[in-house]
Amino acid sequence: MNIKTYLPILDWGSRYNRQTLTSDLIAAIIVTIMLIPQSLAYALLAGLPPEVGLYASILPLIAYAIFGTSSALAVGPVAVVSLMTAAAVGRLAAEGTADYASAAIVLAMLSGAMLALMGLFRLGFIANFLSHPVISGFITASGIIIATSQIGGLLGIKTEGHAMPELVMSIVGNLGQVNLYTLAVGVVAVALLLWIRLDLKNWLGRFGVPKGVATILVRAGPVLVVFLTMAWSVGMDLGARGVSLVGQVPQGLPMLSLPSFNLDTIQQLAVPALIISIVGFVESISVAQTLAAKRRERISPNQELIGLGASNIAAAVGGGYPVTGGFARSVVNFDAGAATPAAGAFTAIGIAGATLLLTPFLAILPKATLSATIVIAVLTLVDFSILKRAWSYSKADFAAVAFTLAGTLLLGVEVGISLGVGASILIFLYRSSQPHAAIVGQVPGTEHFRNILRHKVDTVPGVLSIRVDESLYFANARYLEDLVINQATANPGLTDVVLMCSAVNTIDMSALESLEAIEHRLEDLGVRLHLSEVKGPVMDKLKDTEFLAHLSGSVHLSQHQAISAILDERDSSSSPASPALRPVQ
Amino acid sequence: MNIKTYLPILDWGSRYNRQTLTSDLIAAIIVTIMLIPQSLAYALLAGLPPEVGLYASILPLIAYAIFGTSSALAVGPVAVVSLMTAAAVGRLAAEGTADYASAAIVLAMLSGAMLALMGLFRLGFIANFLSHPVISGFITASGIIIATSQIGGLLGIKTEGHAMPELVMSIVGNLGQVNLYTLAVGVVAVALLLWIRLDLKNWLGRFGVPKGVATILVRAGPVLVVFLTMAWSVGMDLGARGVSLVGQVPQGLPMLSLPSFNLDTIQQLAVPALIISIVGFVESISVAQTLAAKRRERISPNQELIGLGASNIAAAVGGGYPVTGGFARSVVNFDAGAATPAAGAFTAIGIAGATLLLTPFLAILPKATLSATIVIAVLTLVDFSILKRAWSYSKADFAAVAFTLAGTLLLGVEVGISLGVGASILIFLYRSSQPHAAIVGQVPGTEHFRNILRHKVDTVPGVLSIRVDESLYFANARYLEDLVINQATANPGLTDVVLMCSAVNTIDMSALESLEAIEHRLEDLGVRLHLSEVKGPVMDKLKDTEFLAHLSGSVHLSQHQAISAILDERDSSSSPASPALRPVQ
Repeated sequence: MNIKTYLPILDWGSRYNRQTLTSDLIAAIIVTIMLIPQSLAYALLAGLPPEVGLYASILPLIAYAIFGTSSALAVGPVAVVSLMTAAAVGRLAAEGTADYASAAIVLAMLSGAMLALMGLFRLGFIANFLSHPVISGFITASGIIIATSQIGGLLGIKTEGHAMPELVMSIVGNLGQVNLYTLAVGVVAVALLLWIRLDLKNWLGRFGVPKGVATILVRAGPVLVVFLTMAWSVGMDLGARGVSLVGQVPQGLPMLSLPSFNLDTIQQLAVPALIISIVGFVESISVAQTLAAKRRERISPNQELIGLGASNIAAAVGGGYPVTGGFARSVVNFDAGAATPAAGAFTAIGIAGATLLLTPFLAILPKATLSATIVIAVLTLVDFSILKRAWSYSKADFAAVAFTLAGTLLLGVEVGISLGVGASILIFLYRSSQPHAAIVGQVPGTEHFRNILRHKVDTVPGVLSIRVDESLYFANARYLEDLVINQATANPGLTDVVLMCSAVNTIDMSALESLEAIEHRLEDLGVRLHLSEVKGPVMDKLKDTEFLAHLSGSVHLSQHQAISAILDERDSSSSPASPALRPVQ
Repeated sequence: MNIKTYLPILDWGSRYNRQTLTSDLIAAIIVTIMLIPQSLAYALLAGLPPEVGLYASILPLIAYAIFGTSSALAVGPVAVVSLMTAAAVGRLAAEGTADYASAAIVLAMLSGAMLALMGLFRLGFIANFLSHPVISGFITASGIIIATSQIGGLLGIKTEGHAMPELVMSIVGNLGQVNLYTLAVGVVAVALLLWIRLDLKNWLGRFGVPKGVATILVRAGPVLVVFLTMAWSVGMDLGARGVSLVGQVPQGLPMLSLPSFNLDTIQQLAVPALIISIVGFVESISVAQTLAAKRRERISPNQELIGLGASNIAAAVGGGYPVTGGFARSVVNFDAGAATPAAGAFTAIGIAGATLLLTPFLAILPKATLSATIVIAVLTLVDFSILKRAWSYSKADFAAVAFTLAGTLLLGVEVGISLGVGASILIFLYRSSQPHAAIVGQVPGTEHFRNILRHKVDTVPGVLSIRVDESLYFANARYLEDLVINQATANPGLTDVVLMCSAVNTIDMSALESLEAIEHRLEDLGVRLHLSEVKGPVMDKLKDTEFLAHLSGSVHLSQHQAISAILDERDSSSSPASPALRPVQ
């Protein structure tokens, strides 16, 4: 653990050369062109003035370049986190007020602090609680909510809410106020963006445009649509015809400042900040790891937490709002050849330049253009195929997807994802609370023991061998107790029970308590309890316990030895009838 | 599934005879004597008038006799549930008001409905979430809180709160108002009860009193202390000297009535009712199963839920408050020979008689006597040895005990147990999120594969074999991904990775997703992925997945076959150098 662990820039910085500089600069130009319209649009989605999106694309990128470990991750505003910001901040203040903007800054600061602390205390494992079904359901539902929330922007009507019922109601209720000019801009922008994404590359190819140039043009497409609709806006004076424009935007770079801390605001934003942090981290780490693996690079999840934490603190200081590593943008950054995190810093310089140069022109940009940008960008998030795949793979996973999806759509992002996490943990505990267990017998002529229901095996009268295929812990401890005692009371001639522990990876204290209870109850019935095939680490723990000290039977290395020992003992005692192996089934 | 499953009385009732009647009657008399002072005292603990304790000991016992499956379980007011009732209802209304009493009735009704529904829907597994460390920590903390809460009653001062900080503050703050007469009654009652419990039996033995009679006298002890302090109260007119007396109590049996349902009250009591239901069920089922096993009887956990649900609904209808099966009382019932649930019904008749006859006299009973009864009864709940046992067995279980204990003491019963459950689930998920995994090699001369760090084994250059000792699911899916990819990037000459799945009992969708990610990333590195020793049920699920369809390597029945197949393939292709087994360590 040296300083380079916490400041990866010292590591890659020392190897920086002209070649990596060229690669990083080219990637930065392409990502900058892609990021300008996205950052404006996502700020709007978050309920913030568009320039905040630009601010959130400057300092955070520089902070990540210093603390981050991924050479390809493109940090900045992303759709899902913007929606979550709107949902969290919208409860505290009205959109467009100074309180709203400062609450968003506090949210970024809180999220940044939480991420950095999680990284320092190596708590990255918390992200594991977001199971794949929960993330899939959540992202799809978020995409639907985001797209729906932009319908208002495309129609020129007001909408409200961050969950489907309220959103749909407000769209339906305001349909009368549709502005046809806005609708025209919206439809044209959506159509153009779709065409650029789906068809432009082939079309340019037919004119002999080289593939590399075509790819860059496709990525610059959204910026072209911005310029086009700006020209339209000026040419037809759309502002006077009721089309909502971005309007006057403060020129220049943001002032650095610390957010004003208000204990009440912090309390109300703490839980949303935690959820945003974890969702943002999961989105970011997934893409970072996927891209790193392609280059045989390594990502340190805990250092990534610190990097994203620093980015969000920088976002707060620089007048932005919560950011994370975006999926699509990072892939573009990677494809464009970004060789080190410096590419992000160059992108930041590009955005800073754009902020200085562009802001005067933004006033005439129709908001419908930004709504169109968002709708097209989030279409890739919506993926119902996960429902089908989950259904065919496992009903439990399907339930988790469906629960998260429905919860998020109907009740909003925070409640939805919390319900999803809760449901997936409950489902997991429920499944492992009724583990697979089998009564086993000896395969004739071997030392192997198998399920008596599936194999032709021999058992010894009076001896019950049970194999449990799960670690023993609180969720299934009572189940084991019921299983053994029910079997024992159902077999009046029983003298010995052998628990075969080959699949038991751990035994926690609840399970130990249950084993003691089993032992006591079997003793009341005059039955001895034995264990067999206990794994090394499990035995290490058991060896100092009361349970083992008072065990009526013995612990045997193998199931075969357990049965042999019981039979030997019977033979040496004056057993009335010599017991023999009896075939079952 | 027939009617007798849901009405166990039809089963044991058909076999009822003179012998079981005699046994049940004797047990009922002993339990009634024990229950009278306890029911009065626990009602006081719950912040309710003492007669409510008697009411809660009539109808619920009859309901349990009809629906319950345990022949020995003694249902009625118990200490922990009484404390939890006080904590829940105390938030809604002031002690002593009609609102307070009716909220307690609503709580019983809600708890009864929840228990019954859990039973009908076979949700008994929910009780599994209360791990042994959580229950132990919770019960000990509750015992301490209950004993502390009665110090006020023993000193004649007012106390407040249902958690230690508030309780201790209020005791310290009111120490000036100590009433010496109350203190005298309290000290004498505690001393007498302690002596009766610890020494009376031996003392009587020295006078030649037969053991059976001595046992009954010990159990009747608390009633004797009640009569003694009542006489003291009358003789010295303690009421006039500032000693708090039980006071006028309505004579006769309670009127049957339905609780008044107020949606707001129900909302506020829903969560406490759920917690009380689960805690009560766990306490009850533990003792019921322990006692049943001694007689080779069977307890049906789901029918027990229905039985306790019916008891609590009966408690609500009969003017009581939440009840459950008490530990100490059930053991007494069992020892006294209770043969069927009818013993409980006879106890109910006994309590009904006492309610009719005793209530006029209760007016003169010092409340300090009841406080003394509670203190002595809950002493057995406090057991710090669990801390020591948990510490030596597993630090994780110790953390769960300590967390629940501290949370309950400092923040109260509901928050404490919720934190405990949350902590124990988190601890479990954390532990299984970093499963034991080993790189394995072949034990020379055998087909066995063992950890290369622990055994002298052979490995094949370019082939990495990893064994994971845990089911693969969302909490450890990402860990597996990191593990495999880190190992793969650290071994540049790698051609094949074999995942040995002998200890993998399930693979959920998150883990499947991780396997796909592992496969893709290994493909980027030019490395093939193989599986070996996949269990039947796991393979059943995998066989229709994209993952298996696109797997770059193969699935092998055993690790040995996997290695052989890889070597065979290398031999048949024009490998530049014949790979050989290379010893490791």
